[in-house]
Amino acid sequence: MNREALIEATKRQMPEKRFKHVMGVVETAVALAERFGGDAERAWLAALLHDYAKAWPTDRMERIIREEGLPGDLLVHDKELWHAHVGAWAVQTELGIADEAVLDAIRYHTSGREEMTQLDVIVCLADYMEPGRDFPGVNKIRKLAEHKLEEALVAGFDSTISHLVDKGRCIFPLTVLARNDLLRKIERNGKRSNI
Amino acid sequence: MNREALIEATKRQMPEKRFKHVMGVVETAVALAERFGGDAERAWLAALLHDYAKAWPTDRMERIIREEGLPGDLLVHDKELWHAHVGAWAVQTELGIADEAVLDAIRYHTSGREEMTQLDVIVCLADYMEPGRDFPGVNKIRKLAEHKLEEALVAGFDSTISHLVDKGRCIFPLTVLARNDLLRKIERNGKRSNI
Repeated sequence: MNREALIEATKRQMPEKRFKHVMGVVETAVALAERFGGDAERAWLAALLHDYAKAWPTDRMERIIREEGLPGDLLVHDKELWHAHVGAWAVQTELGIADEAVLDAIRYHTSGREEMTQLDVIVCLADYMEPGRDFPGVNKIRKLAEHKLEEALVAGFDSTISHLVDKGRCIFPLTVLARNDLLRKIERNGKRSNI
Repeated sequence: MNREALIEATKRQMPEKRFKHVMGVVETAVALAERFGGDAERAWLAALLHDYAKAWPTDRMERIIREEGLPGDLLVHDKELWHAHVGAWAVQTELGIADEAVLDAIRYHTSGREEMTQLDVIVCLADYMEPGRDFPGVNKIRKLAEHKLEEALVAGFDSTISHLVDKGRCIFPLTVLARNDLLRKIERNGKRSNI
């Protein structure tokens, strides 16, 4: 499929507002890839497809998780994680996307994971800071992202964790593992800043 | 060993200030056990011994973890977790404490764990709220602990997680698992309050 067909296929999965968010993530992910020497082509593709299943009905996602061999323990986790894994399955099945690096970036864009690739980090971070986002701390994340990719994503995870603590909601364990791993990497690289 | 001998053995392991904290935890844990229908005898013992190895030198703890068959992955985690596991090993070996429920409450008093027993919760919570403690949120924890054991400990974990986020430090994954598990238990029991 060419770029235009991929965009059209994505647009058909979601309401206009969500699609606008997706195009914001695409723009931001490509800019981050160019800024940090990443693969802009893959960043474009993973960002375009990251929310492919976001607007799908919950029961459809649940059926796919059960019937298509997706990790069964997804069902005991927060439903917000489902669309990421179901989305990766869907773009593989429906659009023929076979690039595992792109599929992983889609799978882990909500939770993060240990040993995130640069592409994982770029898509996850772009999802936090695309131009349409407005929440406490987003400007700090954007400022960090001018120079420090991993530190910006830690700030993103911090905002999620603080929000979930304030609301008395469960925290995805993978997000904590991802954040710990990034902190260790930043410390190893001696790159920690106090911005 | 009788109570007096246990108190004396504990006192010898730590400076006066730490021992004062321990006796605050003992008093609080026994009060919580009495308030919530728990085992006050075990609460007394686990609280007295929870910080048995807290003041031990790090290299001594590291040697014990390596040589005595304690979980090896402790060494990759924050050193603050070491004293809890080394303490459980020490009171078993040096004082002959054989009650696994007490040893577990000592092992998990810093991190928490999934499926915490009531004794685990009491010791962990008492460690947060003993009279000598003074940190943002401690009064909220004490207030919740008047009626709601699990909600009080969630508030304790929240204070730890928020502190670690603010300081840019790693969060123990077990604490997040423990908090998620308590939140689910509270929701199941329909006991969530908005205090």
